[in-house]
Amino acid sequence: MVLWFTENHSPTVRFSVKLEKQLFSGSSDFQKIEVFQTEEFGKILALDGLIMVTEKDEFIYHDMITHVPMATNPNIKKVLVIGAGDGGTIRELTRYDSIEQIDMVEIDELVVDVCKEYLPQTASKLDDPRVNLFFEDGLRYVRSKENEYDLIIVDSTDPFGPGEGLFTKEFYGNCYKALTDDGILVNQHESPFYEEDAAGMKKAHQRIIGYFPICHVYQVHIPTYPSGHWLFGFASKKYHPINDLDADSWNKLGIQTKYYNTDIHVGSFALPNYVKEQLKDVE
Amino acid sequence: MVLWFTENHSPTVRFSVKLEKQLFSGSSDFQKIEVFQTEEFGKILALDGLIMVTEKDEFIYHDMITHVPMATNPNIKKVLVIGAGDGGTIRELTRYDSIEQIDMVEIDELVVDVCKEYLPQTASKLDDPRVNLFFEDGLRYVRSKENEYDLIIVDSTDPFGPGEGLFTKEFYGNCYKALTDDGILVNQHESPFYEEDAAGMKKAHQRIIGYFPICHVYQVHIPTYPSGHWLFGFASKKYHPINDLDADSWNKLGIQTKYYNTDIHVGSFALPNYVKEQLKDVE
Amino acid sequence: MVLWFTENHSPTVRFSVKLEKQLFSGSSDFQKIEVFQTEEFGKILALDGLIMVTEKDEFIYHDMITHVPMATNPNIKKVLVIGAGDGGTIRELTRYDSIEQIDMVEIDELVVDVCKEYLPQTASKLDDPRVNLFFEDGLRYVRSKENEYDLIIVDSTDPFGPGEGLFTKEFYGNCYKALTDDGILVNQHESPFYEEDAAGMKKAHQRIIGYFPICHVYQVHIPTYPSGHWLFGFASKKYHPINDLDADSWNKLGIQTKYYNTDIHVGSFALPNYVKEQLKDVE
Amino acid sequence: MVLWFTENHSPTVRFSVKLEKQLFSGSSDFQKIEVFQTEEFGKILALDGLIMVTEKDEFIYHDMITHVPMATNPNIKKVLVIGAGDGGTIRELTRYDSIEQIDMVEIDELVVDVCKEYLPQTASKLDDPRVNLFFEDGLRYVRSKENEYDLIIVDSTDPFGPGEGLFTKEFYGNCYKALTDDGILVNQHESPFYEEDAAGMKKAHQRIIGYFPICHVYQVHIPTYPSGHWLFGFASKKYHPINDLDADSWNKLGIQTKYYNTDIHVGSFALPNYVKEQLKDVE
Repeated sequence: MVLWFTENHSPTVRFSVKLEKQLFSGSSDFQKIEVFQTEEFGKILALDGLIMVTEKDEFIYHDMITHVPMATNPNIKKVLVIGAGDGGTIRELTRYDSIEQIDMVEIDELVVDVCKEYLPQTASKLDDPRVNLFFEDGLRYVRSKENEYDLIIVDSTDPFGPGEGLFTKEFYGNCYKALTDDGILVNQHESPFYEEDAAGMKKAHQRIIGYFPICHVYQVHIPTYPSGHWLFGFASKKYHPINDLDADSWNKLGIQTKYYNTDIHVGSFALPNYVKEQLKDVE
Repeated sequence: MVLWFTENHSPTVRFSVKLEKQLFSGSSDFQKIEVFQTEEFGKILALDGLIMVTEKDEFIYHDMITHVPMATNPNIKKVLVIGAGDGGTIRELTRYDSIEQIDMVEIDELVVDVCKEYLPQTASKLDDPRVNLFFEDGLRYVRSKENEYDLIIVDSTDPFGPGEGLFTKEFYGNCYKALTDDGILVNQHESPFYEEDAAGMKKAHQRIIGYFPICHVYQVHIPTYPSGHWLFGFASKKYHPINDLDADSWNKLGIQTKYYNTDIHVGSFALPNYVKEQLKDVE
Repeated sequence: MVLWFTENHSPTVRFSVKLEKQLFSGSSDFQKIEVFQTEEFGKILALDGLIMVTEKDEFIYHDMITHVPMATNPNIKKVLVIGAGDGGTIRELTRYDSIEQIDMVEIDELVVDVCKEYLPQTASKLDDPRVNLFFEDGLRYVRSKENEYDLIIVDSTDPFGPGEGLFTKEFYGNCYKALTDDGILVNQHESPFYEEDAAGMKKAHQRIIGYFPICHVYQVHIPTYPSGHWLFGFASKKYHPINDLDADSWNKLGIQTKYYNTDIHVGSFALPNYVKEQLKDVE
Repeated sequence: MVLWFTENHSPTVRFSVKLEKQLFSGSSDFQKIEVFQTEEFGKILALDGLIMVTEKDEFIYHDMITHVPMATNPNIKKVLVIGAGDGGTIRELTRYDSIEQIDMVEIDELVVDVCKEYLPQTASKLDDPRVNLFFEDGLRYVRSKENEYDLIIVDSTDPFGPGEGLFTKEFYGNCYKALTDDGILVNQHESPFYEEDAAGMKKAHQRIIGYFPICHVYQVHIPTYPSGHWLFGFASKKYHPINDLDADSWNKLGIQTKYYNTDIHVGSFALPNYVKEQLKDVE
């Protein structure tokens, strides 16, 4: 016998992971939160039954959501992170001495508490003095901000449940307003492969291009997410993610990474034709 | 109730697909061959219980194993394909008028028969007049060849079972010998993520670099393969897969593809640091 | 990897069997019909995704639906069987030389055709000269019959889908009318354990006791049915299943059985208290 | 997604239960101990990944292991229970005012601690003043006992792992010696259906009949055990489980039960022919 965690990647496709143990199970006002111990992936954080983070491959997501914008504009000083309750994105951002302030807005305080206890691998830098934690709705938080941030990272859950508001037109409009003229937005962009994920991706892309002059999508390999093919949206007022990349500068910083490098930075913006067509459909 | 096909991606990770129907099940001298009808992926071909081809995403594999070498050297005239019983690689190769001869060596005739009947999507071009089918062991076939092929594509199953011999040192040495001075070898290279796959990948890389002066690995997103992160090995006597790419020439051919384009050709050679380190380990 | 058949025993309980092969899959006007080859159970017949018959344990069901009434009244000459497309009940009945006529009414001819081809173990006696096959709705068939049968066996699927009409008040009333004064009705009675099955069982019992003066429920162990705890309803105009059992007579017949014997005939009418209470609820 | 507990009923048959939560997971010196919350069965106790007790159907096992011997000999005063860490057998025994002493020998103290905390439904009477708990190996405990107990109940796990010693010849011999001349032994006897269980059942039966003049096997429906068809062995020096049953006396006690009654007491000793043959094989 055994204990298995099963996630539906599509209505007829299941991904199952054998568990050693359930470490935590609880419900906040927003979602069901679970932490599992597994042999293959180490600890897993699941929200509403979907894998969010695993110790084995979280580095991929967090590298690529963080270092791509940071290498594009090394002068980023003030960052807003929305979602990201596991702390992994914050951990990567705190590696840049040049960053002066990180405001993190997570709707669900319990996610942060649970990750502090069970996932120190990602939640290790939430007490960095530059980090301010706000436990509130990101959609509402960003409404009142204007010309404040050099970078906004939307590190959200899927576009249903608590993350739903973060995929709306209003939200991206407010993000645009909250950014400085140098501002960059990076958005967790779902996946092109399974139907429901692709719908989320197209919706996000369509809404972002309504505001930002520069919009590009880049891809990563995240084995524990549905299809393993995951996308991020890069939107910006001024900086182009490839033309403005100063690879030498970034490499001089000496930040050791397991996934990101300045070659894959460029390479990840080259998309398969079928993904380009999905994006074109909504442009 | 339902019927599910379950593949172990690792000893503790399972990938399951709901079936509408089993279309074929039989055993050859070499392996168990099954074809399933599914809602999500259309038809699936499984060999010894491992998904080889699905109608939904086979284009990714076949695009990337074929067009990368063909765009690197447009003068390829004579091609040897080892394995590839489903016919997808042949289908892509036959789109090049410039190719004069394609020798395909598949150990298992039953795979070809089954694919002709159940998977016309991939097996549609096996009767192209340029194609010669040999049902024999690729390892043995290639032994006697010398300076004959401009391109060898090793489109094998995993490095256990019938595909095992195709991952040996002897085999790659014979491939080198069978290639002309312009020759390119492209090898199905397994995956960097799960332990057993990564071992296969490292073994293949280690053996190939012992013969070829130019060796690079490139990656693709194949959602129905374990982890979705798949690799190909590009080895060559003369041509560099990026420096020698003549994108304009290839684009002028007007070959419509759903995954490949000349940008992703380049982008796919940019590897994550952790994969680069795995390769370095055996170099 | 493997192929698994999965049946939901309740919304949160699954029973899964590893398959060697799908032997048949088709749809009639009434239901989906599948036959599988398995290591544990031999061949399995599934209707609409529910296991109906397995070669390993079908003898239990067919012994107990047949020999209990036959041993209670050895003078049964004319039998009506409703449902029973797999042929197992007919096979057992044909072992009695005393039976002169068996009318079998099965709504779905394809079930019979499939069982003749794939399940000769159960469908072996459908061509006995005493057997008349009618492919029509049992509910309708029985309407016009009066004082004709000594025994009616309702060997139906579950009380939803094509078997639904066989669980109605009208149907049991017509069965009563179709029986002679000596008549016995045996009804496939579902199970007391999982909620939905128990509801079917109570409904059947409630409707039958409205017509028959003698009504008793007996139980069997059928490992491949949900919970393994299965019930039959014995209803009769005159014969009492225990008081009128003539064990010696039956034993003299020399019928070899793997489950039934005259001790378990009696023992199976002793029900657990919780089942007695379920029955009392509707009496 | 969801969390599923999966138990292999045979190498190719799986029984899976959707979990709401893992309540406890730990390892003692003897086994892995887990407690789950489920919708269908309430709480489940699993030892080494096998379901031992569920809140929904534990009454069946505990009724039948206890009331059958108690109704056969109402003068039982001193009882030895081996295993039974969940407390359910003790709970039933304590309902008899006539019992003066219950010695319970459980090898694994952690099982008892866990059940006290998570399964008060079964573990509710372990502090009855007549109950003495011994945390030691039942095999060793019983060696030194002679002519002491009127009833020994072997409420063990399966005959591999910590329960293995309880299926040996030596053990049953010592049980015989430890019993008074009126003594009865009731043994958890596995199941006749799946191969491995049937082997355990035959082994136990073979060893017990070597010592006791009166040996009978009785059956119950336990839906959460493999096949749902479970057996107990009744062995005795003097009392016959049916001939000596004084149903009236037992019924006068007014013990309310959900499964047991004096009819099913008798009925459960009527076994299917195939089980009788399995037993005959080793007699």
